[in-house]
Amino acid sequence: MIVVMQKGASQEQVDYMVERVEALGLKSHVIVGTERTVIAAIGEKREQMKESLESGPGVAEVLPILAPYKVASREVKPEPTEVIAGSLRVGAGSLGVIAGPCSVESEEQLIATAKAVKAAGATALRGGAFKPRTSPYSFQGMKEEGLKLLALAREETGLAIVTEVMACEDVDLVGKYADVLQVGARNMQNYRLLEAVGKSPRAILLKRGASATMEELLLAAEYILNEGNPNVMLCERGIRTFESHTRFTLPVATVPYLQAKTHLPVVIDPSHGTGHTYLVPAVAAAGIAAGADGIIVEVHPNPERAMSDGYQSMNFKQFEEMMVKCRRVAEAVDKVIR
Amino acid sequence: MIVVMQKGASQEQVDYMVERVEALGLKSHVIVGTERTVIAAIGEKREQMKESLESGPGVAEVLPILAPYKVASREVKPEPTEVIAGSLRVGAGSLGVIAGPCSVESEEQLIATAKAVKAAGATALRGGAFKPRTSPYSFQGMKEEGLKLLALAREETGLAIVTEVMACEDVDLVGKYADVLQVGARNMQNYRLLEAVGKSPRAILLKRGASATMEELLLAAEYILNEGNPNVMLCERGIRTFESHTRFTLPVATVPYLQAKTHLPVVIDPSHGTGHTYLVPAVAAAGIAAGADGIIVEVHPNPERAMSDGYQSMNFKQFEEMMVKCRRVAEAVDKVIR
Amino acid sequence: MIVVMQKGASQEQVDYMVERVEALGLKSHVIVGTERTVIAAIGEKREQMKESLESGPGVAEVLPILAPYKVASREVKPEPTEVIAGSLRVGAGSLGVIAGPCSVESEEQLIATAKAVKAAGATALRGGAFKPRTSPYSFQGMKEEGLKLLALAREETGLAIVTEVMACEDVDLVGKYADVLQVGARNMQNYRLLEAVGKSPRAILLKRGASATMEELLLAAEYILNEGNPNVMLCERGIRTFESHTRFTLPVATVPYLQAKTHLPVVIDPSHGTGHTYLVPAVAAAGIAAGADGIIVEVHPNPERAMSDGYQSMNFKQFEEMMVKCRRVAEAVDKVIR
Amino acid sequence: MIVVMQKGASQEQVDYMVERVEALGLKSHVIVGTERTVIAAIGEKREQMKESLESGPGVAEVLPILAPYKVASREVKPEPTEVIAGSLRVGAGSLGVIAGPCSVESEEQLIATAKAVKAAGATALRGGAFKPRTSPYSFQGMKEEGLKLLALAREETGLAIVTEVMACEDVDLVGKYADVLQVGARNMQNYRLLEAVGKSPRAILLKRGASATMEELLLAAEYILNEGNPNVMLCERGIRTFESHTRFTLPVATVPYLQAKTHLPVVIDPSHGTGHTYLVPAVAAAGIAAGADGIIVEVHPNPERAMSDGYQSMNFKQFEEMMVKCRRVAEAVDKVIR
Repeated sequence: MIVVMQKGASQEQVDYMVERVEALGLKSHVIVGTERTVIAAIGEKREQMKESLESGPGVAEVLPILAPYKVASREVKPEPTEVIAGSLRVGAGSLGVIAGPCSVESEEQLIATAKAVKAAGATALRGGAFKPRTSPYSFQGMKEEGLKLLALAREETGLAIVTEVMACEDVDLVGKYADVLQVGARNMQNYRLLEAVGKSPRAILLKRGASATMEELLLAAEYILNEGNPNVMLCERGIRTFESHTRFTLPVATVPYLQAKTHLPVVIDPSHGTGHTYLVPAVAAAGIAAGADGIIVEVHPNPERAMSDGYQSMNFKQFEEMMVKCRRVAEAVDKVIR
Repeated sequence: MIVVMQKGASQEQVDYMVERVEALGLKSHVIVGTERTVIAAIGEKREQMKESLESGPGVAEVLPILAPYKVASREVKPEPTEVIAGSLRVGAGSLGVIAGPCSVESEEQLIATAKAVKAAGATALRGGAFKPRTSPYSFQGMKEEGLKLLALAREETGLAIVTEVMACEDVDLVGKYADVLQVGARNMQNYRLLEAVGKSPRAILLKRGASATMEELLLAAEYILNEGNPNVMLCERGIRTFESHTRFTLPVATVPYLQAKTHLPVVIDPSHGTGHTYLVPAVAAAGIAAGADGIIVEVHPNPERAMSDGYQSMNFKQFEEMMVKCRRVAEAVDKVIR
Repeated sequence: MIVVMQKGASQEQVDYMVERVEALGLKSHVIVGTERTVIAAIGEKREQMKESLESGPGVAEVLPILAPYKVASREVKPEPTEVIAGSLRVGAGSLGVIAGPCSVESEEQLIATAKAVKAAGATALRGGAFKPRTSPYSFQGMKEEGLKLLALAREETGLAIVTEVMACEDVDLVGKYADVLQVGARNMQNYRLLEAVGKSPRAILLKRGASATMEELLLAAEYILNEGNPNVMLCERGIRTFESHTRFTLPVATVPYLQAKTHLPVVIDPSHGTGHTYLVPAVAAAGIAAGADGIIVEVHPNPERAMSDGYQSMNFKQFEEMMVKCRRVAEAVDKVIR
Repeated sequence: MIVVMQKGASQEQVDYMVERVEALGLKSHVIVGTERTVIAAIGEKREQMKESLESGPGVAEVLPILAPYKVASREVKPEPTEVIAGSLRVGAGSLGVIAGPCSVESEEQLIATAKAVKAAGATALRGGAFKPRTSPYSFQGMKEEGLKLLALAREETGLAIVTEVMACEDVDLVGKYADVLQVGARNMQNYRLLEAVGKSPRAILLKRGASATMEELLLAAEYILNEGNPNVMLCERGIRTFESHTRFTLPVATVPYLQAKTHLPVVIDPSHGTGHTYLVPAVAAAGIAAGADGIIVEVHPNPERAMSDGYQSMNFKQFEEMMVKCRRVAEAVDKVIR
């Protein structure tokens, strides 16, 4: 860390801070500039150090110089991680395509969708059984009954199942039926849940919170990795900005940025990222061109009758057309959907 | 709701949508404009209706015209709610002052702080025993041992205890010791937790998520109210914006806005809202002048040695000075700290 | 427009608002809902009407239902506009590639860059002669001398010249040398400048302001179109959000969104949109996959010695490699770089 | 500056960067950490240095440690600046109150407003003669005729006149009639305009751009100060965030933050900052409690008939009531409206 002293900080203050730095077990190194003095604090940084030093006398700011995530870091593991969960392969050249309805609504709806997306080239099936809803008065999902239908769809199509888990006490139950546990954007910093899925044998799809920084996302992944589960996919699903013509703003630069910082695969979600069906194919193609390792999209037999998220779901034909486009773009960037 | 058809939508599409509106149990009312046709859909709105209609053929957009929260609404209960929890009174003219350390660290630290803030005029003590931390490697709180120290501090000073609960399974435990359960910003949309605290007999301090809209905050409160717990305080603690000179951006207009929409009291948190001790007193005074029903601030005997949030904590003297300022401003807006 | 009355608005208030609506030359249509009354106001909307109605007694809100831009609208002109300016063709299937240094620094720098980007496949040369800089102490550009060098580069390579104009009084001067006048993000709402370039015979590259909405961008274009200049390209160069790992956040959904709303071509700027050279190629490819009609990127013979924006400029080799990737992606989405 | 090398940067890269630092006229100081090497670069920083170093081989990032604004800095001039322009006094304990219509519409409207705000305690009159409007089809102001009415209002009431100037060529004209030239938010980075008003003898009210950082605002002020005009007031009028229940988000922490960084006075604009009349008084009071040196608000004889911004304007009675509240809060923080 670099402790930057205020202009005009006294020698006494500098000495005091040097002592503080050393009391933390760090080596100090004072550099006297033309206008200010800075103290380099060398050694292994621990979380509360920055905060602690920042409130010292005469201190202007403390600049950290090392990323606080470790296991997720590409500096620690340079080669990309490929997550394999049943039929789904994501990362290290494999492009996964996860498609399906927002909510599991009925056997008929789910099985029809599973068959249609499989035929069009999807490599996994998504579908919500436990639904986090903004309003307590909204449909909350079919719960275990929904999970059973998902397992049935896997039997019928061979597609791996991706579904959300909302609470610690459901991790085992959901893990009994699903191949991939999704941690939703609203729960990205529900640390108890992160710890719980970190102990699960299932792969994890971790969605970025709507206002989470890259560092917070990687530290959330770190919570999971730290419990021993190495199969974590990061998912960009859009952030909250001043833009209102889309539901969220999907920053496609997340893909190359994360790929530079971490070995974990990166999935994008153009359905939530845009919130409008007509924008989904272009943004899916964009994500793939940017190098994404997977996409996750909403597909419904009849979007206008969907119990949730109909306005951002594709019907079977739209998904099929999107897949034609995406396959061409994937080839152009040397990715294989498999 | 108002269903706005696209320019050039066909009569067939309009007829189709009228039928869809009526199939949802709503009355329809077609209005032919000079450039577009709109369909007014009259009746009780349910959550999925808007989404469902939005994906209809020829539909440009669907405009809702009623707030989706009910019990929290001032239209339903016009008079302000006063939340009373031990020594703390918030709302309906009473201004609560909640102060204390970010984390409970030791008996000595906590008792000294409790006595100091009580002497300066605080009406409740805050302190974290379960700490949600961005990094898994950070200090996670003293847990039950911390709760016991909080209860001890109440015995010594009479101050009501406000402390965070992070998981459903801890609600009873925390409720055993605390007067007010805090739901943190990261958990504002952890719906299971909201339901759990909705069943608790304790009052709730619900913090706004860093990118939550007013509607999402009120719907989160609605989850709690809907379970039968009427004692909910809403807390503005800052939102995430492009600003980086403060930790978060605290929009003071939240106070009069919420007071117009809901009968629930509104508390502001200038410590998290600014992230810098030297900005806290001005923003606390601003919140009170805007009409806030309470403030919550971080105070520590020795901020630079705090295990968390030291850079935004006041020491005893700073808190005392802030209280002198805040008391004068409170009087100027006819609020009483009691 | 739809005038939504407050719950409990009196009949007198409704009558008053009906009268107000009709005084504005609109037809009114009252719809009595189960909880609220709304008044549909039918006719040609003018800007101040919404604002005026919104402050009426008993009014909850006024919902507009028509886009305020006219000439830019795809509803008015359904077929896409192709902007042709010298060697540059943008729109209607043509993908333009504009490349060059942030600032014109010297003849040697500029000519070398022009030749290199031409060889790699660029179809126009960018370069700043008048530079808007955040600090008054930064390099402000070579001004007319720079323009002359740009004209020289065109002579040598045949590439069309794209350069920024910052002030009304420079429009003629810059237009003497350049093929395309760029209006920078900071000037997107400098209405005098928009009017001035609207009278120029040159094509315009209009950059989105860092916090401009889509509607504001389209209305800024409308200022130009309204003066008689039909050759306007819209440029997404990133918006300001809470993200700090990129200089701005580039929302790739802008491309399909604008293409649905307007016939004007859409260009993306991954250099400013990311602020880091290593992120530029992936985001350029993403923009093309999303359907962009052009890209504009910064290239410098020696980025680390550039007088501005070196950290986001590519060297010749990086640009060449990017073009290989972009050409493949362009083919995958049936776009031709010409 | 601190040049942070990448983990694993070679000795050759470090040596190369040391040479680059010294070639820029800075002294270098290499610090070898446990995981990384950093190079402190000591000496006077110039703008392009950071950018230039950032693209060097093996460089992870470059951290600046000095604010780039000079004349505006409180480090340079510790005592607060009081701006005096006719009847208006802002700063150093004086609280200015600027009130009036968004647009000058007629003699009757303006004179009535001037008299009413004066009677209620305003110390200056605002009113737009040149109006920057989002749409080219909106009312653009009365121009010079409006300026003449403003001058007339000053004659009748003695109130100083604050009005916007939109273009360099109007600076002299507007300065002939007005006491304070306002630079609007959309023009905050119109550098030519900043230079032009920097040469004017009139005081300047510089509004923060909707997505400008504090540093950008201070550097915009620096453009004006650098031309020799010391009478600059900074105005917080709200930033663009994801919030849509207010027109902009007004971050009240701007006031104490700026007061710590600069000696220039800080004015807040709760009318634009909230966009709704009913929120204005609370936010005005909040700004004063936070220590603002002035407020600027919109007042109109009949807001619902205003040609612009009616929804955020107060009528005379509302303004009078607001002033009663504001005067009490001002006293509570030892400010004098004079």
